[in-house]
Amino acid sequence: MRQRNKPWADTYLLEHTNLVIPNPSEYKNKWQELFGNSNPVHVEIGTGKGQFITGMAKQYPDINFIGIELAKSVIVTAAQKVTESGQSNIRLINENAENVMDIFGSNEIATIYLNFSDPWPKNRHEKRRLTFHAFLKRYEDVLNPSGELVFKTDNRGLFEYSLVSFSNYGMVLKEVSLDLHQLNDPENIMTEYEEKFSAKGQQIYRCKAAFKK
Amino acid sequence: MRQRNKPWADTYLLEHTNLVIPNPSEYKNKWQELFGNSNPVHVEIGTGKGQFITGMAKQYPDINFIGIELAKSVIVTAAQKVTESGQSNIRLINENAENVMDIFGSNEIATIYLNFSDPWPKNRHEKRRLTFHAFLKRYEDVLNPSGELVFKTDNRGLFEYSLVSFSNYGMVLKEVSLDLHQLNDPENIMTEYEEKFSAKGQQIYRCKAAFKK
Repeated sequence: MRQRNKPWADTYLLEHTNLVIPNPSEYKNKWQELFGNSNPVHVEIGTGKGQFITGMAKQYPDINFIGIELAKSVIVTAAQKVTESGQSNIRLINENAENVMDIFGSNEIATIYLNFSDPWPKNRHEKRRLTFHAFLKRYEDVLNPSGELVFKTDNRGLFEYSLVSFSNYGMVLKEVSLDLHQLNDPENIMTEYEEKFSAKGQQIYRCKAAFKK
Repeated sequence: MRQRNKPWADTYLLEHTNLVIPNPSEYKNKWQELFGNSNPVHVEIGTGKGQFITGMAKQYPDINFIGIELAKSVIVTAAQKVTESGQSNIRLINENAENVMDIFGSNEIATIYLNFSDPWPKNRHEKRRLTFHAFLKRYEDVLNPSGELVFKTDNRGLFEYSLVSFSNYGMVLKEVSLDLHQLNDPENIMTEYEEKFSAKGQQIYRCKAAFKK
């Protein structure tokens, strides 16, 4: 994701603390309270500019969505998009995905979305891939027993790696799609990146996987 | 696989009982004895015209290869190809894959190859797919604890289905390749079908999977 320096980002985030939660670990085990309902909580890791989470929140008003994005200059764009949408079932967090266990309690999450994560193609960077087993351990902790990980990418190498990583970790593959847009799944919400690359005829891969609990 | 009627097939098979074994269940737990060595036994289910098994037998002279093919008019072509190759580490069986447990003992096999199996795309034919769970049960029985299933196909739907089927059965995916020929794996031996379709630019998928024993 290309990042531009945005000097106004800090101020913007300070002015929107109802949407971009400043100390998210304070809400560990209390996210439903924050949303003021008992709806399931879905988390997108790497929310980018927010098109996916905003589209999902519109499509599923009875689900609470939380988007995590590390880049400050990117999350402000997501925050603007969420504000424009008027959706009240979204919160954003400016954090590193490594910290999900500080932010969410055990079993607090129903679904985690990983969309077009950085492929880190070099072997020596394997540990940085968001489907590396150390990340799966964190997702397993915060997902509830019937929870799912939903992973989309256009990167063949990352997808191949991730299927093997899920399987070696003991996860069960519930669905594998090797050309998502041929399915014409009306429920698929595209990210900005997905829209751009699938328009060029690039295959999009998707896997839904669950932990055995 | 297109099948032509070959009136001479019966006679040919009767004349080549050293290669195409007429009563294979007699050799259950005794295949290494038949080969006269203690080399590992690899089985290809759906051997077709025999290009894969002949190429593999040349490449791996210290492995015993057994090809199973149901169509009599096709297995005779494989038998001719094996005879021409002069490879002594191949035997063929004119049988249905459903019967592998009658033919092989528990743990007798080190590797099973499924190459370009019929995709049976209709849901109501799921049970006929060679990666349906009832078939996996049979493979599990005859494979030894460190044994592997190696599956190749150009059919996207069958590959997606099979990854999910392996995973639901409790198998572990050791390798997934979504464009095998981009790997330029010098050890990959192509089937007739694979050679034809990959020449047209068709993606070839491969998965190596193991049972947890």
